[in-house]
Amino acid sequence: MLGLGLIGGSLARRLARSHDVVGHDSDAATRQAAEEAGLGVAGSVAEAVAGRDLVVIATPLPAVGSVLAEVAAAGTPAILTDVASVKAPVLDAVRAAFAGGPRYVGGHPMAGTERSGFGASDPRLLDGAPWVLCLEDDTDLDAWLAVAGLVTGLGCRVVPCSAAGHDAAVARVSGLPHLLAAALALAGADGGPLALALAAGSFRDGTRVAGTRPELVAALCDANRSALASAFDATVARLAAAAEDLRSGGTVADLAAAGHGARQGWVALPIGGERSRVRTSDPGLRGALTRLGAAGGHVTAVSGGVLDCWAPVHRG
Amino acid sequence: MLGLGLIGGSLARRLARSHDVVGHDSDAATRQAAEEAGLGVAGSVAEAVAGRDLVVIATPLPAVGSVLAEVAAAGTPAILTDVASVKAPVLDAVRAAFAGGPRYVGGHPMAGTERSGFGASDPRLLDGAPWVLCLEDDTDLDAWLAVAGLVTGLGCRVVPCSAAGHDAAVARVSGLPHLLAAALALAGADGGPLALALAAGSFRDGTRVAGTRPELVAALCDANRSALASAFDATVARLAAAAEDLRSGGTVADLAAAGHGARQGWVALPIGGERSRVRTSDPGLRGALTRLGAAGGHVTAVSGGVLDCWAPVHRG
Repeated sequence: MLGLGLIGGSLARRLARSHDVVGHDSDAATRQAAEEAGLGVAGSVAEAVAGRDLVVIATPLPAVGSVLAEVAAAGTPAILTDVASVKAPVLDAVRAAFAGGPRYVGGHPMAGTERSGFGASDPRLLDGAPWVLCLEDDTDLDAWLAVAGLVTGLGCRVVPCSAAGHDAAVARVSGLPHLLAAALALAGADGGPLALALAAGSFRDGTRVAGTRPELVAALCDANRSALASAFDATVARLAAAAEDLRSGGTVADLAAAGHGARQGWVALPIGGERSRVRTSDPGLRGALTRLGAAGGHVTAVSGGVLDCWAPVHRG
Repeated sequence: MLGLGLIGGSLARRLARSHDVVGHDSDAATRQAAEEAGLGVAGSVAEAVAGRDLVVIATPLPAVGSVLAEVAAAGTPAILTDVASVKAPVLDAVRAAFAGGPRYVGGHPMAGTERSGFGASDPRLLDGAPWVLCLEDDTDLDAWLAVAGLVTGLGCRVVPCSAAGHDAAVARVSGLPHLLAAALALAGADGGPLALALAAGSFRDGTRVAGTRPELVAALCDANRSALASAFDATVARLAAAAEDLRSGGTVADLAAAGHGARQGWVALPIGGERSRVRTSDPGLRGALTRLGAAGGHVTAVSGGVLDCWAPVHRG
């Protein structure tokens, strides 16, 4: 486990219950705290990765490149995964760091808190979380299944999708909400004390995530630059059209109705889930997993050569 | 009380504890429900307003014009107020309906629920609510003080500001949040089942008010067309600039940091409030009230020729 912050520390502590885990962190105080918490800790990246079945990169995003270089200098790991919140840039970095390998499976556990660091880590943090595991056209299926087995063994739901698909989705449901919240907070502040005195529930909810540390927001958004810019453009165009409609004496009824429908479609609980099983030996496995993730489904278990899958079933 | 829906019904039931209240509603079933709840109910607008000290228009916004015409046909009321959620259009309609009068004080109690109709009314709905009372350059101060006395007597905080100032403020803290939520909900839906499966807290909060009935959102926004279009333009320009920065390899750090600062500035509780008193006979009363509202303050009581005022005091 390379990086023992909130996610890496939580995952290392959880995995240490059932696996032989060695962690490393570039920060000496973090290494000491991890040792005091009973984790096996190595003094260097090379020492941490030597002879391991799986290497997990769990550093902050800006440090991924340099850690990859250290891993590569120590040799090619059997299987490599990571927990970064954007996936295409990490995939590119892995391809640049290793010629022709390693067996890399990009990962993103969708859990977190506003806190950070090993001191905030908790072996239960990731319990039940959705966990994206990237499946590219050239991803080694055995490596993917090995990581999926580990992750489902923690009680997490594995969502299969490509790095590009992941990044496009989180641009819409995470990056964009943070930037709209920032813009709304500024629009309110521009109205001065009177506007802020009249602000209530809709302003409070719409600006809540603007309370996130701005350097985290910028890191998340900047790293997902291309996907976010695309999602952004369509949204800005929609808002500009509504503003123009208003200005020319028209109505925002269409935007309000379409937005209402979209929101109701999201909150409407599926009427149920459809369970299915796929054999790991199935020659159509890669396509089945890709379709499962695209349908909003996930893998719940990998055991005895069989994947248990779940997909939502919606009304109508 | 002309209109016995959520706000008119709640206000009539609350006022009836201490005042002689007669209500009217264009809907016969609503009139019957109000009578069964013990309210005095008139069969026509003319009958309802005859000889009254105060007429309150509490119909939905689209009906305000026709009710004003009926009120004008019955004579000029002593004092006229309303509870509509936009103020400049109602002010214009009052000026059009009455030559040279009446003594009109535009009002907006900032309370509500997602429900509507007399069946949802509750005498406690308006308890403690901020309540804008409009003060134009030509507003009759005695009429303003009479309505402010009634409203503070209900335990509400009276925020003085102009109709245009009110509309500009609510465009920012109410109209804009609803339209951004609609656009975000659509951006999420555009991402398909995968994006919606990965959506969590930031998407949920950012889209919450897109759950509001879209015809209410459209009515609120369309009636406040001009102020909303202005607030909208600045926000769209900010978002477009951030999208362009991203696309050209830059960072959203500035938007994230500015939005974070704005949000923190709003949630930071004032370190206290400053209480002050103004005599109703003070020749500078109109200016003092205007400054109070612009500073985010309000009137808490009107009694014995003295207004008790409160203004927030912020750190730094």
